[in-house]
Amino acid sequence: MIDNDEYVLQMRVYFQDTDAGGVVYHGCYLNFMERARTEWLRSYGYSNAGLMKQFGAVFVIRACHIDYLKPALLDDLLEVTAKIKEVGRSRITLLQSVRRDEVVLTTAEMNLVYVSLENFKPISVPDVLRAQLKY
Amino acid sequence: MIDNDEYVLQMRVYFQDTDAGGVVYHGCYLNFMERARTEWLRSYGYSNAGLMKQFGAVFVIRACHIDYLKPALLDDLLEVTAKIKEVGRSRITLLQSVRRDEVVLTTAEMNLVYVSLENFKPISVPDVLRAQLKY
Amino acid sequence: MIDNDEYVLQMRVYFQDTDAGGVVYHGCYLNFMERARTEWLRSYGYSNAGLMKQFGAVFVIRACHIDYLKPALLDDLLEVTAKIKEVGRSRITLLQSVRRDEVVLTTAEMNLVYVSLENFKPISVPDVLRAQLKY
Amino acid sequence: MIDNDEYVLQMRVYFQDTDAGGVVYHGCYLNFMERARTEWLRSYGYSNAGLMKQFGAVFVIRACHIDYLKPALLDDLLEVTAKIKEVGRSRITLLQSVRRDEVVLTTAEMNLVYVSLENFKPISVPDVLRAQLKY
Repeated sequence: MIDNDEYVLQMRVYFQDTDAGGVVYHGCYLNFMERARTEWLRSYGYSNAGLMKQFGAVFVIRACHIDYLKPALLDDLLEVTAKIKEVGRSRITLLQSVRRDEVVLTTAEMNLVYVSLENFKPISVPDVLRAQLKY
Repeated sequence: MIDNDEYVLQMRVYFQDTDAGGVVYHGCYLNFMERARTEWLRSYGYSNAGLMKQFGAVFVIRACHIDYLKPALLDDLLEVTAKIKEVGRSRITLLQSVRRDEVVLTTAEMNLVYVSLENFKPISVPDVLRAQLKY
Repeated sequence: MIDNDEYVLQMRVYFQDTDAGGVVYHGCYLNFMERARTEWLRSYGYSNAGLMKQFGAVFVIRACHIDYLKPALLDDLLEVTAKIKEVGRSRITLLQSVRRDEVVLTTAEMNLVYVSLENFKPISVPDVLRAQLKY
Repeated sequence: MIDNDEYVLQMRVYFQDTDAGGVVYHGCYLNFMERARTEWLRSYGYSNAGLMKQFGAVFVIRACHIDYLKPALLDDLLEVTAKIKEVGRSRITLLQSVRRDEVVLTTAEMNLVYVSLENFKPISVPDVLRAQLKY
């Protein structure tokens, strides 16, 4: 059974995230989502630096689909979410979103693969972590 | 009939594009693709700054799907491509890719909408430009 | 008399901030410092978006000097600081730093100018804000 | 005797480089300058990836001073320069600038150190490269 709890991380929009169209640059939502995913992972007791050191492995993005519904703006206070959709041997699918107040601005499906740092080939997610994710 | 010519822009990978995993950061491919799209648009005689000044409008990303097949590395010389898939009244779908030598590293489908800068609502792509794109 | 209180903002280092050298990319410290400056300004009741809307003006960087003493690493929890050095009619000099635990990793002197959005020429900082900064 | 030839790299400004103030984000000039420095180094036959593989070392920024004189804008075609000011055992000082047409927009002095990737401690620039730089 998949845990359907949604992890939520608050963040603020700064000039560095915006572009000359006056809104958040479309590529920066991937930054926002990485931050939320990382803190979601940390909520299970794992850090990227830790996985790299302990297991010589890291989660990388294999594919993503992003829908941009409404623009986020300078100084917005955003909620960026992460929620498990599916957990496989070396793959995890996450649903992520960016919200302002109750309004969903962006949604994304992120396909992650756990790969060895040596050759970037998929390897099994450590059992101790996968057990938690699948709980 | 849709023009199936592929636009190709060469670019180099710098430290700014990479991350501590030793490869190009997944979000940076959106930067690479924006550069190729912009030069593709310029090949039709239009710039983003020009569209904003002349028409008070701009192309924004409405959705994107990206597949990361193989990592690009520091100092790689990449070819980033753009090719029309579909042209609508206010929407354009582009296929884009990132290649190193003959190897495809990343592919993407980008859904663009032409919107007014005032309210970010879709408006018709100027006839003179759409005629060229559909040619 | 200048307020010598140091404003401190905590932030985490993500992959997006690092490069293939395994450390935080030198340009990303400017991002970190913008975040701390913005929250420092907000502690006086002012936001960038607010200044732009209310006064048609914004603080821009006129010059900066940065010393990189030690590298910050992936997953580090950093403290980024901002402290007033000098307040003029349209100019403010801030001292900023990035620390990990008790160790100073980076220091910077940032020269800001308050400029009109129309022509990017310096204008006077609103009295109500300057009075607070100089207090 | 120091080579006073100025290396020049052309580049275009894209949305990814701009912010909601309508101009290039101050941190992005460091990206522009890294690109010019890297191509300047390549003009001597050395790449960053090559130095890392061959010598286990890399040039990092030890300090920089940047003056922002005039803003660069979306779609600008810029010239970014690099010129040697001083060459030491493990240190190099470069003067860099960003120009549009004949107008200097930004100037910078960049202090680089050649460090071992293992401990980020300064080591001697390989003689074969330093000889060229000092020529």
